Amino acid sequence: MTKQSANLRVRLPVFVFITEVIIVVLYAAFVTYDEEADAKFQTNQTNSMHNAVYRDYPFFADIHFMIFVGFGCLLAFFRLYGFGGMVFNFLIATFAIQWAILVQGYFQFSHDGKIHLGVINLINAEFACAVVLISYGAVLGKTSPLQMLAMALLEVPVFAVTEWAVLKYLKINDAGGSILIHLFACYFGLGVTFVLYRPSLNEGHAKENTSYHSDILCLMGTLFLWVFWPSFNSALVLKGDDQHRAILHTFIGLSASTLTAFALSAMLNKNGKLTMADIQNVTLAGGVTVGASVDMMISPAAAYSLGMIGGAACMLGYKYLSPILAQRFRIQDQCGIHNLHGLTGLISCTAGICAILAANEDIYGPSFYEIFTHRAPVEGDPKLQELQMMIPGLKPGLGRTAKEQALFQVAAIFSTIGLSALGGILTGFVLRLSCFASPSDDFCFDDELFFEDEISENCYLLNIQG
Amino acid sequence: MTKQSANLRVRLPVFVFITEVIIVVLYAAFVTYDEEADAKFQTNQTNSMHNAVYRDYPFFADIHFMIFVGFGCLLAFFRLYGFGGMVFNFLIATFAIQWAILVQGYFQFSHDGKIHLGVINLINAEFACAVVLISYGAVLGKTSPLQMLAMALLEVPVFAVTEWAVLKYLKINDAGGSILIHLFACYFGLGVTFVLYRPSLNEGHAKENTSYHSDILCLMGTLFLWVFWPSFNSALVLKGDDQHRAILHTFIGLSASTLTAFALSAMLNKNGKLTMADIQNVTLAGGVTVGASVDMMISPAAAYSLGMIGGAACMLGYKYLSPILAQRFRIQDQCGIHNLHGLTGLISCTAGICAILAANEDIYGPSFYEIFTHRAPVEGDPKLQELQMMIPGLKPGLGRTAKEQALFQVAAIFSTIGLSALGGILTGFVLRLSCFASPSDDFCFDDELFFEDEISENCYLLNIQG
Amino acid sequence: MTKQSANLRVRLPVFVFITEVIIVVLYAAFVTYDEEADAKFQTNQTNSMHNAVYRDYPFFADIHFMIFVGFGCLLAFFRLYGFGGMVFNFLIATFAIQWAILVQGYFQFSHDGKIHLGVINLINAEFACAVVLISYGAVLGKTSPLQMLAMALLEVPVFAVTEWAVLKYLKINDAGGSILIHLFACYFGLGVTFVLYRPSLNEGHAKENTSYHSDILCLMGTLFLWVFWPSFNSALVLKGDDQHRAILHTFIGLSASTLTAFALSAMLNKNGKLTMADIQNVTLAGGVTVGASVDMMISPAAAYSLGMIGGAACMLGYKYLSPILAQRFRIQDQCGIHNLHGLTGLISCTAGICAILAANEDIYGPSFYEIFTHRAPVEGDPKLQELQMMIPGLKPGLGRTAKEQALFQVAAIFSTIGLSALGGILTGFVLRLSCFASPSDDFCFDDELFFEDEISENCYLLNIQG
Repeated sequence: MTKQSANLRVRLPVFVFITEVIIVVLYAAFVTYDEEADAKFQTNQTNSMHNAVYRDYPFFADIHFMIFVGFGCLLAFFRLYGFGGMVFNFLIATFAIQWAILVQGYFQFSHDGKIHLGVINLINAEFACAVVLISYGAVLGKTSPLQMLAMALLEVPVFAVTEWAVLKYLKINDAGGSILIHLFACYFGLGVTFVLYRPSLNEGHAKENTSYHSDILCLMGTLFLWVFWPSFNSALVLKGDDQHRAILHTFIGLSASTLTAFALSAMLNKNGKLTMADIQNVTLAGGVTVGASVDMMISPAAAYSLGMIGGAACMLGYKYLSPILAQRFRIQDQCGIHNLHGLTGLISCTAGICAILAANEDIYGPSFYEIFTHRAPVEGDPKLQELQMMIPGLKPGLGRTAKEQALFQVAAIFSTIGLSALGGILTGFVLRLSCFASPSDDFCFDDELFFEDEISENCYLLNIQG
Repeated sequence: MTKQSANLRVRLPVFVFITEVIIVVLYAAFVTYDEEADAKFQTNQTNSMHNAVYRDYPFFADIHFMIFVGFGCLLAFFRLYGFGGMVFNFLIATFAIQWAILVQGYFQFSHDGKIHLGVINLINAEFACAVVLISYGAVLGKTSPLQMLAMALLEVPVFAVTEWAVLKYLKINDAGGSILIHLFACYFGLGVTFVLYRPSLNEGHAKENTSYHSDILCLMGTLFLWVFWPSFNSALVLKGDDQHRAILHTFIGLSASTLTAFALSAMLNKNGKLTMADIQNVTLAGGVTVGASVDMMISPAAAYSLGMIGGAACMLGYKYLSPILAQRFRIQDQCGIHNLHGLTGLISCTAGICAILAANEDIYGPSFYEIFTHRAPVEGDPKLQELQMMIPGLKPGLGRTAKEQALFQVAAIFSTIGLSALGGILTGFVLRLSCFASPSDDFCFDDELFFEDEISENCYLLNIQG
Repeated sequence: MTKQSANLRVRLPVFVFITEVIIVVLYAAFVTYDEEADAKFQTNQTNSMHNAVYRDYPFFADIHFMIFVGFGCLLAFFRLYGFGGMVFNFLIATFAIQWAILVQGYFQFSHDGKIHLGVINLINAEFACAVVLISYGAVLGKTSPLQMLAMALLEVPVFAVTEWAVLKYLKINDAGGSILIHLFACYFGLGVTFVLYRPSLNEGHAKENTSYHSDILCLMGTLFLWVFWPSFNSALVLKGDDQHRAILHTFIGLSASTLTAFALSAMLNKNGKLTMADIQNVTLAGGVTVGASVDMMISPAAAYSLGMIGGAACMLGYKYLSPILAQRFRIQDQCGIHNLHGLTGLISCTAGICAILAANEDIYGPSFYEIFTHRAPVEGDPKLQELQMMIPGLKPGLGRTAKEQALFQVAAIFSTIGLSALGGILTGFVLRLSCFASPSDDFCFDDELFFEDEISENCYLLNIQG
C-alpha cells in the first residue's frame, strides 16, 4: 500500500502537470471565442440580451450541477469510499471537460483552424463528461484515480469521434442522447470492467456495503439528478415547443419510473421492505427511456408508459441480470450501469424508432421538417418547391423516408455499441498497466488507500462520543 | 412487524400499479399538449424564444428543487427515520403531482374535452403537491407509505375543488397561496392527525429525537427552501414589476423571520442556547406571512414587519401552543405545521386584507386594475369608459369595492379552513382502515419497519470504526 | 460556560431586536421600490418581460444559493462545530444582507432622499455579505455569534464606503471583485484575527479537527460554490458577450485550479495521499484569480494559466505560509482565507493590470470603450467626435491611457488593503469587549457552548446503535 501511494505521489502530479501543459498550449494555439463571446463581433446593432449565453447558460448551470454535485453524491454510496466517490468524480469530471472542449472542438466547433468557444461548447463537453462518469460507475471503487484519468483521456476521443461520425454521416435523431450518451457510456464501461475483472470480488467484499449516512448522501445525489434531468434531456433540443415537450416528457417519464421502482422494490424484497439501492437508481430510469423521442409528439401517455417500462426493465436488470453478468460473463458492473443506461437506452432507441415511423406532417404541422430535417426533400426536388410555398424558408434535406431514417437509427445503435465496447476493452488493457497503480483487492472500496487518514480521525470521533 | 411488512409487499405494488394503469389510461384519453408545447400550433411567425417555457421553467425548476430536495431533507430530521423522511417524501410527491396534473387539469386546464399540458400545469401540480407534503408533516413517522399515498389520493381532489371554487366564485387575491396552500394544507393535516391520535405518544417516544447528522441534514433542507422561496411565492404572480416585488418581499420577510427566530430561540431556552428545531423551522415563517400580499405595493418595511411578526408567532406556537393542542385537543402535530403554516397563514391573510383595503390607484397607477382585476368597473359602467380613456385595453371587472373584496377574502379563508378540516377528518377515518398497514406505536419514527436492514449495516460500520 | 450562555440568552435577543427595530424604521423611512419594481412606473407601453428582474434574478438565485448553502456547508468542516459553521453562517449572512441593503443603498442607490430597491440591490448586498463571510473564515470557531454580528455591523459600512470611494473616485475595472471583495475581506479578516490572537491555540486544540461526515459536508459546500461561481463572477458584468466571457473564464480558471490542487495535494503529502482540506479549498482558487480580468479578452488559455497559478499559490500558502503567519505574526487564519482570497486576489489584480495594459481597439472592436469606459476621450476632445462617427452613441470618458488606468488599479489595491486591514484591527478591539461573550479557549470549535444539547443526543444514538 505504501508503495502504491508512493506511486501516486509521483505519478499523479506527473500525469496532471503534463496534461495541463499540453492542454494550455493547445488552448493557446487553437482555442478562441465564438461570435457570441467575442467583443470584436459585437456591433451597435447587437442586442446584448439576445446573446446565446442567455439561451444556453440556464441549461448549462443545471447540467453542471448534475455532473459535479449530483453524480458526486450518487457515487458516494459506499460506507468507506465516500471520499473516493465524490472526490474522484470531481477530478475525472474536471479533466474530462477540459479535454472534451479540445477534442469535440476539433471535430465540431472548429473553422479557420480555430476552435470557437462559447457556453454551447461547455454543454457538449459536459455531455462527454457524463459519458465518462457513467462508465466510471462500472469500475467504481476498484480503480485508482490515475486509471480513471487515463480512461477519461482515452474515452473522450473515442466518444467524440463516434459522436461526430454518427451525427455527420448517419444523421440521426437522438435529442436525449440515448444512443450517443447512454449506450456509448454503458458499453464502454462494461468493456473496461470486463478486462479489469477481479474474480475474488464475486465472493463479495467486506467493505462493499453502505452505511446509513452514505445511503442518504447517495439518495441526495439521486434527487439532484432527478430534479435537473429535464434540463439535461432538453439542453440541445430545438428551442421553443420542442424544448417545452422535452421538459414535459422527461418529467413525466421520471415520475412514472419512480412509482414503478417503489412498487417493484417492495414486491421483489422477501420481507416486503424497500431497498435503498433501488430507490437510488431505478427511479432515474425514466429519464433515459424517454431520451431518444423526448422532443417528438409522442403524447404524455407514451412518456408515462416509457417511464414504467424503463423502471421495470432497470429493476429486473438489477435483480436478475447483473448477477449473471458478473458470475458467467466476468462483467462486474459495480453501479449497474447496464441496467440504468444500457437496457433503458435500448428501450429508448426502440421507442425513438417507433416515434420516427409514426411521425407525419399532420401531427407536427410545418415544423415537421425542422425536427426531422433529413426527411425534407432534396435540393431541386419539385416537392420541395411545393412545400416551400406552404413553409417559406424550408431548407432542403435528404429526402429520407421514415423507414430510411429508422434504418439509420438502427445503424447508429449498432455502430455506437460496437465502437464503445471495442474502445472500452482496449482501454481496459491499457488500465491494467502497472504504472496506473491499480489498488489490490483488499484496498477496493476503501478511502484509506488514497486519502490522508480521515477514517482514523473519524474513529477518534466515535470513540469520544460513543 | 413481519406481518405488517408482508402487507406492504403485496399492497404497495397493488396500489401503485392500479393507480399507474388508471393514470396512464386517463393521460391517453384526456391529456394533450397546450399551444406552447404542441408542434402543430407553431407557425413561421412563431418566435421560438417567446415560448412560455422560458417564462415558466426557471420558476418551475426552483420549486421542483424545493419539493423533492428541500422538503425531503427537512423531513429527514428524525435520528432513525431519515430514510422515511426523504424517501416517502419522494414517493408521495411523485404520486401527488401525477394525480394533480389530472385533477387540476380537469378543473382548470381543460377545454374541448382535453387537458392541455404545459410547464404551467406542472407548477400548479407542484403547489398541490406542496399541500400534501405540508399535511404529511403533521403525521410524519406515524404512518405507512400506503396511508400517505391514500392521503394524497384523497387530498388532491379536495384541494383542487376548493382551489377551483374559491378562484372561480370568490375571486380572491392570494398570490403566495397563503389561503389555498398554507391554510388548506395545515387544517387538512390537523384533521388527519386528530383522527389518527395516538395517546401513548404524548408520553414521548424513545425514537422521537434527532441526531447530530440528521439535524444538519434537516438544516440543509431548511436552507434549500429558504433560498428558493422567492421563486415559490412569485411563480404564479403577474409578470413584470409584480413578480419583481414578490421576490423582494419574500426575501425581506424571510430574513426578518430568521433574525427573530435566532433571538427568540436563545431567549426562550433556559440555558440561553440555540435550539436546532427553531432554526430549522421558525426561520421560514416569513415566507408564509408575506404570501397573501406578496405582489402588492405594501412597502419593504411592511414585508420586514410581517417577517418579524410571523417569526414570533411561529416561535411562540411551537413553545406554548403545540403542547396544548397535543395534550388537550388530541392534535399531535409532528412537525408543528400549525405554527409554520396555520398561524402564519392567518397573519398573512389578515395582512393581505389590510393591503387590499389600503390599495388605490394613486399607489399603483394604471396597473391597479391588473392586480385587482375584480375592482375594475363592470361592462357598460360609464366609469369604465372614462378609465379606458386613460388606460387603453382595460378589461371590465366586477366593480368590487375594497371592502367587498376584503369580505370575499374572509369568506375564502373560512370556507377553505372548513373544507380542509372536514376533508382531513374524513381522510383520517379512511386511513385508519387496517388495509393501509398503519405502524404500531413501537415502530413509529423507525426506518426498520419499511427499509431493508440499513440500520444493522450502520451498526456494523460503527462497530468496525468505534 | 453557563455564565456565558446566560449572557447569550439576554444579549443576543437584545442585539437582534434593537437592530431589527432600527432596520425596520430605516426601511420605513428611506427604502422604496426602484422603477422596475414599482407599479406606478409601469405604463401600457411597458413590456413586462423586459423587466430587470428577468436579467438579474437568475444570477441572484445562484449567488443566494452560494451564500447560504455553499458557504454554510463549507464552514461546517469541524467535527464538533458543524452547527456553528452552518447556523452562524445563516445568522451572519441574513443580518449582513439586511444591513448592506441600507448602507450600500445610501451610498449607491439613493436619490430624492430614498433608497430604491430592486433585485440588483440584493445582488450587491449579497456581495457585501460574501465579504463578511470570508472574513468570518479567519476566526471560525473562536468567536461567539454576538461577536460575528458586531463584526458584520462594523464591516459592512467600512466595505460600503471603500467600495463607493474606489468606484466613484478611482474608477477601476474589477468585474469579479478581486480587489473589493476578496482583498478587502481577506485583510479585514486578518486584522480581526490578529487582534483576537489566542496563543494557546498554536499548540493545537483537541476539537480542532474534522470527521468523515463533516469532511463530506464541507466538500459539498465546495462543490456548490464551484458550480455556481461563474454566476458570482459574472453577475454584475455588462450584459452580452462580456457576461458570456466572464462565465467561460471562471469555468476554465476553476477547472485548471482543481487539477492543480489534486496534483499538488498528492505531491506535497508525505504518503502521496490526497488531503481533503486541499480538495475543499484549493480547487476554488481559480475562481478568484480570473476575477479582475474576467470580462476582458484575455483568451481561454490565459484563464487556464491563471487557474493553474492560483491553485499553486493557494496550495503553497496553506502548506508553508499559514503556519508562519500563525507562529511568527500572531495571525491565526482558521480557514486560510489569506491563501484562498489574499494571495489569489493579488495574482488576479496583477493579471487584471496586465490585461488592461494589453487591451486595445483592435482586439475589442467598438465595444472597447464600453468595457474600459474611462479610456474614452473626454467631452469636447476632437478625437471623441471622430470615434463617435464610427461608434454612434459612444459616451465621453476620462481620456485615460492604459498606463493611467493601471495606476488607478494599483492605487485601488493599496487603499483597499489599507482600509480593510485598519478596519479589521479596530473591529478586533471592539470584539474583545467582554459584552460580546467570546468563548474561552476550551470551548472553541465546539457546538456545545451555543447549541442545546445535540451532541449528547448524538452520543445516545451511537450508544444505542454501536
